[in-house]
Amino acid sequence: MFEQLKLNKLSEQHLYIQLYQKIKEMIDQGFLEEYQKLPPIRQMANLLDVNNVTVVNAYKLLEEEGLVLKKVGSGTYVAPLIQKIDREEVFIDDEIQLMNQGQLSLKQNVISFATATPDPDLFPIQDVKTAINHVLDRDGGEVFGYQDSLGYQPLREAFRNYLATKNIDSSVKSIQVVSGAQQGIDILSKAMLNPGDVVFTEEPTYTGAISAFKSRGARIISIPIREDGIDLKILEAKVEEYQPRFLYLMTNFQNPTGYSYSSMKKERLLDLSQNYGLTIVEDDSLSELYFTQESFTPLRAVADTENVIYIKSFSKIFLPGFRIAFMVLPDSIIGQVMAAKHTSDISSSGLIQRTFDLLLRQGLWEKHIEGMRQIYLGKYQLFVKLLTEVLPREVKYTLPKGGLNYWITLPDGYSANQLYKKCLAEGVIIIPGSVFYPDGRPNNMFRLSIAAVEEAEMTKGVKILAQVINDFLDGENVEDTVAFTPLM
Amino acid sequence: MFEQLKLNKLSEQHLYIQLYQKIKEMIDQGFLEEYQKLPPIRQMANLLDVNNVTVVNAYKLLEEEGLVLKKVGSGTYVAPLIQKIDREEVFIDDEIQLMNQGQLSLKQNVISFATATPDPDLFPIQDVKTAINHVLDRDGGEVFGYQDSLGYQPLREAFRNYLATKNIDSSVKSIQVVSGAQQGIDILSKAMLNPGDVVFTEEPTYTGAISAFKSRGARIISIPIREDGIDLKILEAKVEEYQPRFLYLMTNFQNPTGYSYSSMKKERLLDLSQNYGLTIVEDDSLSELYFTQESFTPLRAVADTENVIYIKSFSKIFLPGFRIAFMVLPDSIIGQVMAAKHTSDISSSGLIQRTFDLLLRQGLWEKHIEGMRQIYLGKYQLFVKLLTEVLPREVKYTLPKGGLNYWITLPDGYSANQLYKKCLAEGVIIIPGSVFYPDGRPNNMFRLSIAAVEEAEMTKGVKILAQVINDFLDGENVEDTVAFTPLM
Repeated sequence: MFEQLKLNKLSEQHLYIQLYQKIKEMIDQGFLEEYQKLPPIRQMANLLDVNNVTVVNAYKLLEEEGLVLKKVGSGTYVAPLIQKIDREEVFIDDEIQLMNQGQLSLKQNVISFATATPDPDLFPIQDVKTAINHVLDRDGGEVFGYQDSLGYQPLREAFRNYLATKNIDSSVKSIQVVSGAQQGIDILSKAMLNPGDVVFTEEPTYTGAISAFKSRGARIISIPIREDGIDLKILEAKVEEYQPRFLYLMTNFQNPTGYSYSSMKKERLLDLSQNYGLTIVEDDSLSELYFTQESFTPLRAVADTENVIYIKSFSKIFLPGFRIAFMVLPDSIIGQVMAAKHTSDISSSGLIQRTFDLLLRQGLWEKHIEGMRQIYLGKYQLFVKLLTEVLPREVKYTLPKGGLNYWITLPDGYSANQLYKKCLAEGVIIIPGSVFYPDGRPNNMFRLSIAAVEEAEMTKGVKILAQVINDFLDGENVEDTVAFTPLM
Repeated sequence: MFEQLKLNKLSEQHLYIQLYQKIKEMIDQGFLEEYQKLPPIRQMANLLDVNNVTVVNAYKLLEEEGLVLKKVGSGTYVAPLIQKIDREEVFIDDEIQLMNQGQLSLKQNVISFATATPDPDLFPIQDVKTAINHVLDRDGGEVFGYQDSLGYQPLREAFRNYLATKNIDSSVKSIQVVSGAQQGIDILSKAMLNPGDVVFTEEPTYTGAISAFKSRGARIISIPIREDGIDLKILEAKVEEYQPRFLYLMTNFQNPTGYSYSSMKKERLLDLSQNYGLTIVEDDSLSELYFTQESFTPLRAVADTENVIYIKSFSKIFLPGFRIAFMVLPDSIIGQVMAAKHTSDISSSGLIQRTFDLLLRQGLWEKHIEGMRQIYLGKYQLFVKLLTEVLPREVKYTLPKGGLNYWITLPDGYSANQLYKKCLAEGVIIIPGSVFYPDGRPNNMFRLSIAAVEEAEMTKGVKILAQVINDFLDGENVEDTVAFTPLM
């Protein structure tokens, strides 16, 4: 396939940049496999009739971007997918960081439907400041000593009481404090997964979970999610075939789809879990951000079972940079999980845990989530209106009833990776669906998040998006077989 | 071997407690191997001529303590060593937590030479409080947003500047902020180790590192450390044999021995590293806590080489519960390490990072370490005097020139695990050497740490310790072959 590569020697673009871009495209579009070897420098230079240096520079650039790996004495290889996924996450991180640093030029020029966390101005800064000072005055130096690996005991009690208000029965001894849901997933992986173990996920699913499972050498089998939850028929067949270590899922306002499980599906899933001894890891970060009269109960509230491990994160909509979440664990794994937490970072910060404890006891979380529901209800209503009225009819979606994410499907044959690039050129950021699939293959879906978009920007952003999609669908994109890979 | 188990039916002690204690002893003393299967309930009950329920209850107690694992439908197995090591760490944690909760009854009755972190009262609470409020007023909500996975940029600059004062050349892009040195070790393991990879450590070494390497399925080969550093002859032979992924070490005031590398050994180690392409992970948490005129330079300051990964922690003597450390990385692994940090917990807390940045820029670290040197110099001098004058002549040790740890060797044939229990009964806590060996086998060494002991307690504690050792050596302990395992 490299035989067909052609560089334009008359272009003003440096030859090594051209080569870099061509190879990057081949990787992005799935023409090159993970770990596939690139031709050696000299051979590639001969093929293209260029200097060795051109190829060296192009490979170097690819390496810096994490797209290829160089092995000394052995050659250059396409990097595994996990690194590509992380590149996307890192890209989102970069963007957040630029914003945090107040580089408004970027903020002014770019409308991001990628960022899944709210504008920092929405955080209750003054309340947090008061709480921190209270904790420092109350506890003194103890705040800065090592803390219990399980978590600060009063905070664990506060979490138990919080759960009781959500009709979730738990005991303090089953609660493990973690530094954010991502650490919860990572620690569970450490405690429960060995190389070659099979993990089930929804398809699509949260990229950070994919990374954590892959990092343990687990094999990920993904089961399609429908509008009312995971496909139970496929799940049942695959459970029998693979006997997975656990199934990782989000029952309400799933990331990235925004879908929620129906009551019936939750019941049937619990039955299935009981029948097959299937452990379920339920990740709940958004179930309290609902915009309708319906209630969105976690699976763990439906049944108090040893089979459900519950991860509750507050950070998506409260204080992301605080890094606090907790897990409710079955008795059988408490010891291993605590050991894994200890190995990971000994304990979470004492100051942060004690402050969070006070905020929770003062009812600040309830007050904050109430306020967030008000703010995001307005955004939700506007966004739904915009999607319905402005987006071309050819795209399909199911409106969520809460949360921050919207999952949009292009007509068959169009790649959202391509659309992503075209949007970026027009100053709008979306996240292409490939990022949320364990195998990372391009597809025709993408995620929009309204977390960090002001209402005025939202209108402008959706209009630009609609225009880009229209041009994209009108263009010859679907006929251009070189530019596309077979879709899933 | 279970055939020889005998329970005393006339004792007031419940039979299941007796059985639990016997099996626990067999595990502690290494008579039972990791993953060795215990006899099935019925078989064990027959052997001992007791009810099935007795065995069930004993196994249950062992399981609760993490000493055995139950596999459904398969039986009961001795838990792997990693869990036993963690039990020891957890024990220390528990003790710290009880103290933190102000349960003074414990603090009054127990003298702990186990805790390796200072009394919380020594932390500069007021300065930290001022800095936190300054950061909150300055940065507002940004403090609580997601942060860059690499770390807060100004903090990374502050670390670069700090390193320059220690004659360590680095660049901001090579600095990765982590939530404590333990997370640094864990993240490096995630980025660099696959199951079956070989890692070298000093012998003995830090338990948290052992846990992190084992958690990645690495094979640990430990190389004896001498008073002037690792044994280079053995190291060289083993490097050729195993080609390890890296060597993990502490060059100054090593944990647990307190030993420091001589200048010559550092030079020769760097030569060896160069010759064999051996990567070294240098963990430095104490090199600034010296008590003599000698300077204690990290390896990374001796040579600016791609072969040394440097982990610098402030938490041992500054603010342990803050959870802040950083790593200086070779270019070749920056990308993988950042991805591993992202998978682990996305980023460290923004509030903590920004506060630490301010403290460092205000020179508070320098001021604090100066004060700690004064305080610990007094403790150091007293402790050296006590060891020399009070401990029985039969025990051997090398006095460290800084740090917090002292490594004591009993005469051949005596188990420090046994001594640990006898000390505990007298209200003095030591850590037996077995904890610091990757294979966890009992031996005749133990660690004393003076981090958390007041001077008055210190005198009392060493006197009790001396008395217990005298009784221990006078007793018939070394003849009692049942109570001992072959020593390393």
